[in-house]
Amino acid sequence: MIALDHLRHVDATPARLARESYRAGEIAPTSGVAPGFTQANMIVLPRDWAFDFLLYAQRNPKACPVLDVSDPGSHATHLAPGADLRRDLPLYRIWRDGKLAEETPDATKAWAEHPDLVSFLIGCSFTFETPMLDAGIEIRHITDKSNVPMYLTNRPCRPAGRLHGNMVVSMRPIPASRVADAATISGRFPAVHGAPVHVGAPEEIGIHDLGKPEFGDPVRIEPGEIPVFWACGVTPQAAVMASGVPFAITHAPGHMFITDIPDTAYHA
Amino acid sequence: MIALDHLRHVDATPARLARESYRAGEIAPTSGVAPGFTQANMIVLPRDWAFDFLLYAQRNPKACPVLDVSDPGSHATHLAPGADLRRDLPLYRIWRDGKLAEETPDATKAWAEHPDLVSFLIGCSFTFETPMLDAGIEIRHITDKSNVPMYLTNRPCRPAGRLHGNMVVSMRPIPASRVADAATISGRFPAVHGAPVHVGAPEEIGIHDLGKPEFGDPVRIEPGEIPVFWACGVTPQAAVMASGVPFAITHAPGHMFITDIPDTAYHA
Repeated sequence: MIALDHLRHVDATPARLARESYRAGEIAPTSGVAPGFTQANMIVLPRDWAFDFLLYAQRNPKACPVLDVSDPGSHATHLAPGADLRRDLPLYRIWRDGKLAEETPDATKAWAEHPDLVSFLIGCSFTFETPMLDAGIEIRHITDKSNVPMYLTNRPCRPAGRLHGNMVVSMRPIPASRVADAATISGRFPAVHGAPVHVGAPEEIGIHDLGKPEFGDPVRIEPGEIPVFWACGVTPQAAVMASGVPFAITHAPGHMFITDIPDTAYHA
Repeated sequence: MIALDHLRHVDATPARLARESYRAGEIAPTSGVAPGFTQANMIVLPRDWAFDFLLYAQRNPKACPVLDVSDPGSHATHLAPGADLRRDLPLYRIWRDGKLAEETPDATKAWAEHPDLVSFLIGCSFTFETPMLDAGIEIRHITDKSNVPMYLTNRPCRPAGRLHGNMVVSMRPIPASRVADAATISGRFPAVHGAPVHVGAPEEIGIHDLGKPEFGDPVRIEPGEIPVFWACGVTPQAAVMASGVPFAITHAPGHMFITDIPDTAYHA
């Protein structure tokens, strides 16, 4: 990975314009927006929970690769100077006592409830979809213009303090002849989930019906295609639910934070 | 990187025997001991400082790649079941108010001063020396049976909470024709400092006399060799000093913790 300070000269206008449109009120999924700029999952927690979460992420790096952590009380990030994490995502989820309480395009009001919130930005597998497409590997949910399917597995993450929960995975159907290529290409991007965690045999990880993802949309699986599973940045939301976290703000699935950082920066 | 749970079948007897000899009182540097098993830097801090440090590590991943974090009050690690972090390193340093207070082969007494210590194990560049040797690249401090030279640079790390300090680097002289190979090979191991942070031009990072390292021993530099600098796991000790941390336990430079994890597990 390239040190971020070396990337200050990159023209990030497309990323900035996208954030400005969300700040102005536009609500839309971010897949395909500002191509080439890294998108991130977000979870925001009170300072009292921040060590537990950072440790949870350290112990579960495939699911929770941390790209940046804000200072307590700040809504700024190193990954996009000038951005406001309270308003620059298209859609937020507010969680109370482990339950989804609200979806909102502006988290400013909820953010004001706690003076010491810490924001975690977590790598997103959208980052390696572009090089997979460049290698001639079809990404079905892009072809079909749907959200990627995501499943809650039976695989527990390593707990940390008060946090526990199972891993969430995203799934892409890949032709059997290209599975190795998909693993190799995504494996070059460890900061955005890296190589698959599971290939085929969905029942082994507790997925009994690929047509019913817990998050996102189901996708077509053609004959000769294998379901390939990557660790997913919605895993923190599963931990919020399983652990009954008193208060959290997250992105809404598919509605990511768009950073100023080129995807290539996360090439290992 | 391979999930550690897949490595449970590896026979780690050489690592365990080394730890047992240190526990029994042997004091010696660990370079070349239990070859093939990952060695780690250690810093142990009270729970109150743990979030600041974990954030410091997250923000400075080249210098502080975290391999494992213990639960508060525990002296166990996921990387070596059965090990006792208070006694299984050959030599410890006890720090008080940012100053080195003591070197001791057994940290049990100091450890008992705080009920909630958190231990951080951090990757060590010894891990990529073996594949560099395998590629025919001489490692001078191994040839000359000395400790690797380490220098405090003028490059500030990104601060986190109360922690700040400059990066420490290790230096290996590499023939000009092999510098690219050394960068490529070490770059495959991002969890143990990865690729060099600086090649040649030591004065640019505030090193004015290669013959006077702040830690370790100076080494011969032959004509046609370039000094190549890697981020170093002694960086946390520089932060302890610069930040006046009230209490910390660390390894003594060169006297690392030997884990049960094969070096190959950290190949990206």
